[in-house]
Amino acid sequence: MLKDTLTRTRAARPLVHCITNFVTANDCANLLLACGASPIMADDPLEAAEITAACQALVLNLGTPSPRRLEAMLAAGREANRLGHPIVFDPVGVGSSGFRMEAASALLSELRLCIIRANAGEIHSLCCGAAGTRGVDTDAEASVAESRALARETDAVVVCTGETDIVTDGQTAFRVYGGHPMTRLITGAGCQTSALAGAFAAANPPLEAALGAACAMKRCAQIAHARLGPQEGSASLRSYLIDAVCLLRPQDLKDVRYDIL
Amino acid sequence: MLKDTLTRTRAARPLVHCITNFVTANDCANLLLACGASPIMADDPLEAAEITAACQALVLNLGTPSPRRLEAMLAAGREANRLGHPIVFDPVGVGSSGFRMEAASALLSELRLCIIRANAGEIHSLCCGAAGTRGVDTDAEASVAESRALARETDAVVVCTGETDIVTDGQTAFRVYGGHPMTRLITGAGCQTSALAGAFAAANPPLEAALGAACAMKRCAQIAHARLGPQEGSASLRSYLIDAVCLLRPQDLKDVRYDIL
Amino acid sequence: MLKDTLTRTRAARPLVHCITNFVTANDCANLLLACGASPIMADDPLEAAEITAACQALVLNLGTPSPRRLEAMLAAGREANRLGHPIVFDPVGVGSSGFRMEAASALLSELRLCIIRANAGEIHSLCCGAAGTRGVDTDAEASVAESRALARETDAVVVCTGETDIVTDGQTAFRVYGGHPMTRLITGAGCQTSALAGAFAAANPPLEAALGAACAMKRCAQIAHARLGPQEGSASLRSYLIDAVCLLRPQDLKDVRYDIL
Repeated sequence: MLKDTLTRTRAARPLVHCITNFVTANDCANLLLACGASPIMADDPLEAAEITAACQALVLNLGTPSPRRLEAMLAAGREANRLGHPIVFDPVGVGSSGFRMEAASALLSELRLCIIRANAGEIHSLCCGAAGTRGVDTDAEASVAESRALARETDAVVVCTGETDIVTDGQTAFRVYGGHPMTRLITGAGCQTSALAGAFAAANPPLEAALGAACAMKRCAQIAHARLGPQEGSASLRSYLIDAVCLLRPQDLKDVRYDIL
Repeated sequence: MLKDTLTRTRAARPLVHCITNFVTANDCANLLLACGASPIMADDPLEAAEITAACQALVLNLGTPSPRRLEAMLAAGREANRLGHPIVFDPVGVGSSGFRMEAASALLSELRLCIIRANAGEIHSLCCGAAGTRGVDTDAEASVAESRALARETDAVVVCTGETDIVTDGQTAFRVYGGHPMTRLITGAGCQTSALAGAFAAANPPLEAALGAACAMKRCAQIAHARLGPQEGSASLRSYLIDAVCLLRPQDLKDVRYDIL
Repeated sequence: MLKDTLTRTRAARPLVHCITNFVTANDCANLLLACGASPIMADDPLEAAEITAACQALVLNLGTPSPRRLEAMLAAGREANRLGHPIVFDPVGVGSSGFRMEAASALLSELRLCIIRANAGEIHSLCCGAAGTRGVDTDAEASVAESRALARETDAVVVCTGETDIVTDGQTAFRVYGGHPMTRLITGAGCQTSALAGAFAAANPPLEAALGAACAMKRCAQIAHARLGPQEGSASLRSYLIDAVCLLRPQDLKDVRYDIL
């Protein structure tokens, strides 16, 4: 049952190590606390592996990348693989520079990932090695095919978030409905979904974790948007999204509609 | 017409590359999304120029500086100049250390800037090479003269924000009224104005962009302050400011009073 | 009188230099502004000592540590000691890596600290050199003893925050009541207390500063929690906490109960 994914996550109270960008780190940390997990942000190679060893999941986020942070990601990732901890990878803006493409390639080739959470353009970039710029008018069917292909190639569950979310392990594929387009006006809504997937992956099998996290964010975006008053805009939505995760009950996940593709 | 500056910015949906401090990066990103632009934060020399090339404006913010970030600013700035993209420079705390003074000098001498957004003390430091400490009781007339001089020297539009804002290209000078002194209790209100100026500069001539961004922030600060209830303080104001940008209509800019000096 | 600690802090309007993690830097800056102080965040060795010299207090926070930031902490710390400025040290997650333990040791041995603000696990780690993991079911009596011991060893006032706070200079010890357990769902509530202690230490003797800051945060957490409506969770609490600091009146500190142990 989908609602059990949240129940298990809350019961496990996982420590989640995030090596993440400085733009949305605060939101990711607050999101993790809101869902019942605890964040540890640590991005120096000197301590990355040791911190990971004490955690139950690892989230690698490619925003504001640097050689130092990439080195920390690889060190932490190898340790997580050695210990069997799930790794969530968020290839933020991967198509926007050669450095991000190379960093993603290094992470994909050196690490066994549990979940890859990205938007359609980023998944296109990972699949095709090409820049997935904002201008690309992503074809919804192409995204399903690319998400499946990426999942098969990497043996990870792929979560492609957008107007609807695709969640697939390469075989089974789900389409998740809900959410609200206004979440695009919040920086880091995607990063937060990846962080949440990390928490869920610490307490659930990969496909259930990914589906549970995607459904939770879709539902919380609806709850948050429904709270908005006439003078309230994107900053209020940002707070309400984390509030919604904080107050989310397992049974609320039943309200999320998803199809098997 | 001033209101057209916002209309054009929203229509252009510019990608704005910010090389900025880690304290207010999240607010700047959310501000840019709220105004209809999209932020890309990337501060490593390995990708800075490439990221800039895919954007329509560049914002260089001197907060929490480091040699690495300065190198990225120079690389991105040269690329922006080569491509004719507008650069906004925010010399945060420039008078507070020799390193910041040298970094600002390097940026001013190597790059053609479109807009410089600063407070009176920072503009004094840029003009006179002296520390502009908080204690300096800045003379309002002196600020106008220094803003004009800096604009002439750099060929950039200067926006000097404070109780009233000065916007000048060295010839024409405007004084913008409005805002609310309580915005001084929010970290990064200045950084956000600079980010907004970057978005406006991607879609408007420099002087109009600067004036439009200054007026927008003045108006939004008023709107935000007017929403404050009796138990609400600076954190609420911070959210309401971004909410106001999100909901700002072009015609709201007509309510901002400004004089030509 | 305890209420005078806030009055003096507001009157002094201290500049507080924070060398701090990128996760909660924005909250700490906004908290400092809310209490009447001004933050300067600067973490590069090239300018750290110079920035400190222009401030009235220094806050060293061990979150997201790096060799570069540690170097900046040592340089700034030596300058603060030379000038007699108070230093607040927050050993975030000190037990979670060898690097953090070594960094803390270096700071403790090279610098004279004014206040150490930490949780019980971190104080245990500093006292015993052992990892203070979340699992440790900290004994309340042990925390008092360890806080006293650490205060005596370092000649700093120790503030051990938790369900109740302990404030001690090694001789006198106070237990502060109040607050709300839900503040554990906000990242950086501890960091904010440390930043506040920095502001108070700029204007008050160490023990009074520490007790005043602890009482102020306890009271503000209560005020913030009391404002929460039925749909409001941890993100609202985070804003309300800073709002409460912004609106806190000196006489509100009289409502905080504390015992001498």
